[in-house]
Amino acid sequence: MLFDKVTPCTTTLEREAWQIWDAKAKPQLSLGRLEEVAVRLVAIRGELRPTLGEPALLLFAADHGIVAEGVSSSPQEITWQQCLNFAHGGGAIGLICRENGIELRVIDVGVNYDFDPSLKITDKKIGYGTANFARHKAMDREQLESALGAGKEEVLSLAKEGIKVVAFGEMGVGNTTSASALMASLTSVPIAECTGRGAGLSNEGLLHKQQVLNRALALHGKISDPLEALATYGGFEIAAIVGGMMAAAHHRMVILVDGFITTVAALIATTIEPAVRDYLIFCHQSKESGHANLLKLLKAQPLLDLSMHLGEGSGAAVAWPIIRQALNLYLDMTPFSDAKVTDSVALLKKQGVDRHAER
Amino acid sequence: MLFDKVTPCTTTLEREAWQIWDAKAKPQLSLGRLEEVAVRLVAIRGELRPTLGEPALLLFAADHGIVAEGVSSSPQEITWQQCLNFAHGGGAIGLICRENGIELRVIDVGVNYDFDPSLKITDKKIGYGTANFARHKAMDREQLESALGAGKEEVLSLAKEGIKVVAFGEMGVGNTTSASALMASLTSVPIAECTGRGAGLSNEGLLHKQQVLNRALALHGKISDPLEALATYGGFEIAAIVGGMMAAAHHRMVILVDGFITTVAALIATTIEPAVRDYLIFCHQSKESGHANLLKLLKAQPLLDLSMHLGEGSGAAVAWPIIRQALNLYLDMTPFSDAKVTDSVALLKKQGVDRHAER
Repeated sequence: MLFDKVTPCTTTLEREAWQIWDAKAKPQLSLGRLEEVAVRLVAIRGELRPTLGEPALLLFAADHGIVAEGVSSSPQEITWQQCLNFAHGGGAIGLICRENGIELRVIDVGVNYDFDPSLKITDKKIGYGTANFARHKAMDREQLESALGAGKEEVLSLAKEGIKVVAFGEMGVGNTTSASALMASLTSVPIAECTGRGAGLSNEGLLHKQQVLNRALALHGKISDPLEALATYGGFEIAAIVGGMMAAAHHRMVILVDGFITTVAALIATTIEPAVRDYLIFCHQSKESGHANLLKLLKAQPLLDLSMHLGEGSGAAVAWPIIRQALNLYLDMTPFSDAKVTDSVALLKKQGVDRHAER
Repeated sequence: MLFDKVTPCTTTLEREAWQIWDAKAKPQLSLGRLEEVAVRLVAIRGELRPTLGEPALLLFAADHGIVAEGVSSSPQEITWQQCLNFAHGGGAIGLICRENGIELRVIDVGVNYDFDPSLKITDKKIGYGTANFARHKAMDREQLESALGAGKEEVLSLAKEGIKVVAFGEMGVGNTTSASALMASLTSVPIAECTGRGAGLSNEGLLHKQQVLNRALALHGKISDPLEALATYGGFEIAAIVGGMMAAAHHRMVILVDGFITTVAALIATTIEPAVRDYLIFCHQSKESGHANLLKLLKAQPLLDLSMHLGEGSGAAVAWPIIRQALNLYLDMTPFSDAKVTDSVALLKKQGVDRHAER
C-alpha cells in the first residue's frame, strides 16, 4: 500500500477540552479562534494536555517544465538561487523560522541545478524538473512514487526525532501554474478562478498563463483521480508535500498548512484520505488568486489574512506564535475557581443561555 | 493646554522604506500587510532602521455606575477580582504578555474596591466607579482631567524608561456599554449597530442594553465634543486611555490598539487631534458588535480577526509577535544583491509593470 493508515480524530476529547476552556476565568468563548485551535491540537494529539515542542518546516524545492511556456515572471534560476540563499540562512523563511523557534529543512526533490553536497540541502532529487505538462505528463508513475516517498521519509525522520508539528513549504518557479492546473482538474472551479499572478505576473502575463492552462487541461482532460492528476500536472515538491502530509497524519502530527501550493497538496491528500483533514491547521490566506476559492471549497477558515503571497511556507511560519499562544493559554490559564473570580457563565446557565449556541 | 502637541508623520521616510522592501529577495509586496506595518513603524519612529525593544501594556481598570441598569452579564465584583488575578500573574493578559515579552502594568483609575497597597496595582484611583450615565453625567470635569492625566503620567513614565511601544488594555464591568454610548454620541452609527453582548449577554439582555442606551442618549443628547462626550458617557479607564494615547503620540511611540473599548478611545483621541491616527496600529477585530463598524469608520484594517472578545488588551498582545516579525524581516532580510538572487522585478519594470499599482 502506498500510504499508511490515517485514523480520524475522535470528538470525545474535544468535548472535554471545551469544558476546560469554559472553566477559565474569562467570558466564555472570548478567546475565539484561539480556543478552536487549542481544541484541534488536543484532538490531533489525542491527549487532553498536549505538549508540542518546536515545529519543523520541510521546504521542498523543484523546478517545473511548464516554465518553458512563459507562465512565470521569474526566471527558473531563482529556484536554485533561493535554495542557496536558504542554505546560507537567508530568505524570508530562514528569518521567520529562527525568530519563531522552527527548524527549517530544505529538500531538493527536483531542482534544475547540482548543489554542492556540503550545503545544508537534503538531496532527494528525482529529476532536473518535471516535464512541460502543456505537452507531456509532468512525471511518470515511478517519479510520482519517488516524490511521494521523499515526503514520507522526511516526515518519518521528524517523527523519530519526536517532532510533533510539521509545516510544509515550497520553492519552485512555475509551481503556482502546476497548483492551478491541479485545482482546476480536481474541482469544478473554472480555470480563471484557480489562477493568480504567482510571483508577479502582469495583467497580460496572467491572461497568457490562463491560456496555457486551458490548453493543458484540454490536452489531458480533467482528471479526477488525485494521483493521476498529480502525475499529470504536479510538481515534484507538490507530490512530496502530499506524501509528507499523508505520513504526518498517520503519525498524528499537527500539520500547518501554508498558502496556495500547500493547500492544493492538502486538497489532494484529503481526496486520497478524507481523515487527513482532521490533522490540518490552515494558517493563512494567500493573496494568490485561487487560494480563497480553494479554502472555501475545503470549508477552511485560516488563522491569518495578511495579503502575503511569498510561498516558502512563510504564512505557516508567521502563524506559529499564534498557535503556540492558543495552546499555552489553554494549558496554563487559571480557572474561575483558582482565580477567585465569579463565574458569571454559571449565572447565565441558570438563565438558560448557551453561549456556544448563540455565538 | 490639556494635551501636548502631536506631530504628524512625514511620508518621505515611508517612500525610502518601500524602496528597501522592494530590494529584498522576494516577489514584490509578497509579505503583504507585514510590509505595510514595518513602513508604519518607520514613519512613527522617524528613523529608517527603528529598534523598538519590548512593549509595555497599560491596563487601566475602573467600574461603571451604568451597571446599576442591568446592562452586563457579569457582576461588578469581577472588575476587582480580575485585577487581583492580574496582580498575581493570572488572567489571559498576564500569560500572553509573559509569552510575548510585554511588560504588563495594571492601573486602578476607579475600581469599586480598595486594593492592598502591597499589590502590583498602581493606585491612580479617581473614584469608586463613575456615576450612572442613565441618570447623571458619568464624571465631572475635574474627574475627567484626572483620568486623562493618569493615562498621560503612565505613558510619560514609559517614555522616560525608553519604552517605544505601548499597548492599552482595560478591565471594567460595564465598559462596553460606556463605549457604545460614546460611539453612538460621536458618530452617526445607530445605537443598535454600536452595541454588542459584552462579556456574554443573552438576546434579551442585549435588547435591554440597547434600550438603556437609547434612554441615556435621549437624556443627554448626542454630544459631538469629544471631551464633553467622554465626561458624559465615559469610564475612567477609557479617559485614561485617551490621555495615554495623546501622550504616546506626542512621544512618537507606537500605539497598539486592541478591541472595541480601546478603538473608541482611539476615536476620541483622533477626534481631539487627527494626527494621533499616524501612530496607531490596529491589532485585531473584536467579535464585539460595533467594533467592525467603528473600524470601517476609521478606515482601519486590523491585523488579526480571530473572533476574540476578551478585552484586557489581549488582541493587541496576541498581535505583537506579528508586528515584531514584520520589523525584523524589514531590517534583516537580504536584498537581491547580497542574496545573489535575480531581481525579476527589475525585468518587470522594463515591461512597464508597477506591482504597487496592480496589487
